[in-house]
Amino acid sequence: MAYIFAVDLGGTTVKMGLFETAGNLLEKWEIDTNKEDQGSHILPDIAASIRGKMTEKSIKDSDVAGVGIGVPGAVRDNGDILGAANLGWGTFNVKETLEGLTGLKVKVGNDANVAALGEMYAGGGKGYNSIVAVTLGTGVGGGVVIDGKIVCGANGAGGEIGHIHVDDDETEVCGCGNKGCLEQYTSATGVVRLAKRRLAADDKASSIRNIKNLTCKDVFDAVKEGDELSIEVAEKFGYILGKALAQVACVVNPEAFVIGGGVSKAGEILLTFIQKNFVTYTFNGCRNTDFKLASLGNDAGIYGAAKLIME
Amino acid sequence: MAYIFAVDLGGTTVKMGLFETAGNLLEKWEIDTNKEDQGSHILPDIAASIRGKMTEKSIKDSDVAGVGIGVPGAVRDNGDILGAANLGWGTFNVKETLEGLTGLKVKVGNDANVAALGEMYAGGGKGYNSIVAVTLGTGVGGGVVIDGKIVCGANGAGGEIGHIHVDDDETEVCGCGNKGCLEQYTSATGVVRLAKRRLAADDKASSIRNIKNLTCKDVFDAVKEGDELSIEVAEKFGYILGKALAQVACVVNPEAFVIGGGVSKAGEILLTFIQKNFVTYTFNGCRNTDFKLASLGNDAGIYGAAKLIME
Repeated sequence: MAYIFAVDLGGTTVKMGLFETAGNLLEKWEIDTNKEDQGSHILPDIAASIRGKMTEKSIKDSDVAGVGIGVPGAVRDNGDILGAANLGWGTFNVKETLEGLTGLKVKVGNDANVAALGEMYAGGGKGYNSIVAVTLGTGVGGGVVIDGKIVCGANGAGGEIGHIHVDDDETEVCGCGNKGCLEQYTSATGVVRLAKRRLAADDKASSIRNIKNLTCKDVFDAVKEGDELSIEVAEKFGYILGKALAQVACVVNPEAFVIGGGVSKAGEILLTFIQKNFVTYTFNGCRNTDFKLASLGNDAGIYGAAKLIME
Repeated sequence: MAYIFAVDLGGTTVKMGLFETAGNLLEKWEIDTNKEDQGSHILPDIAASIRGKMTEKSIKDSDVAGVGIGVPGAVRDNGDILGAANLGWGTFNVKETLEGLTGLKVKVGNDANVAALGEMYAGGGKGYNSIVAVTLGTGVGGGVVIDGKIVCGANGAGGEIGHIHVDDDETEVCGCGNKGCLEQYTSATGVVRLAKRRLAADDKASSIRNIKNLTCKDVFDAVKEGDELSIEVAEKFGYILGKALAQVACVVNPEAFVIGGGVSKAGEILLTFIQKNFVTYTFNGCRNTDFKLASLGNDAGIYGAAKLIME
């Protein structure tokens, strides 16, 4: 039997998986991300965990097809990472470094792009060959997969759809330094921002008006209960995201958008707000694009990392 | 010696080229596009022209690597065309039909996409591997090429960037049926529209105020002469196009944008208006994207069609 090791490197934990080359997940585990000393322990820790698992399972080097890894930074096709602020990393070649540490073949991708590949391979995008995955979490991540291949971009900025400019009038600054990015309105924190702005606009009664530490979940729970003000917020969310995805479709015309991340826990109702605005604003040849919810949750990264090796 | 036939099918003429498989253009010629009888004569006419050229040059079937053709409609990877209103065509498989008529291997692409491939292979995008080509003509066409391959999209609508929605307040309807498409402001007719709107806004003196049948060329000629009002129009043009391309870059992060079509005859000055807005609105990882002028003019289509076969 041949094996693949899959690694999803995050700022707090490293999620790891052992797959058969046929694609079955045999086992998964986590190790801590040790960010001390500019993150210089991270790849050695990952290599040690892989070698340890190989010893435990009596897996020979020749039985391992490779190691796929998703990392939280911009990555070029050749494995160069252009810095990962969360880890303390600068610019170096992750592929060559991890190959040196493990003695195994390594393929590297950006974490959001790799998660997109995972959702297409084994999750909400299963059965499609070209998707755009949108992760609505603390920020807004994206991954573009065309004909089964990640579009990583000239500087690893392919799929950075969270930073599509959507509003000239924004006064607050996005994490990226620009103003008016998609992420500022449609991430979990963005939805709360939209809700607070709406609440402040007038005194309209709403079940979310007196909630302390309002969350995105509170807003969509209220939407489901018919709270008018919350529905207005969801409409605004859907207008901003649906219009931005309409623009994305005019560029790559994917078969489907796969929507994941914490915000997507609101479920199918979320898609209705997005999709009706998408249909209004996109090119007629793109109107029938499918909208699906992501289904792998935190496992999308390891499935995608495994798929990097299966390609 | 092995040969490639290249065909750029337009609504008025069919441009044809004979290439060596190494990529040299040996000869080019045109035939009329006969749109009678729902365009049913077009492919037989093309086949007859190819067979005639083969007889004239004593080229054997076995010496022909294939026929590449760009067609004015949405095309799937398998050669299905989803209608071409300009030609009277409905939905059918262009590849299989032309293969049947010529006895030669055929590859098909959308005309704008194929022209983009041509510009990357032999024109303004030479040396790059991933570009977005933008053709500012009567309309606004686009072509996305990633790692040397056209992104044709699920419904052949990849690269339809002329129909990116850019203005919610537009009252006039675009050719596609939507309102507020990029094409309505940045095509040759779009620039004239922007100029007329600016002229109507007040009585500011301008060298273009009394020109009858104002053209896009008049506007950019006046820009070069320092006409303030025309410069305002060019700024607005650059704001709209630069911002839209900033959004495109967040999706596919190309190495370069290659700008062609009639509007691009204004020259390098055009790029300055676009690029400064692009830099303002795009993600920081995309700011160093190159901007180039297309250089093949009307030959881009046959170069790209030949490249379809060279791949």
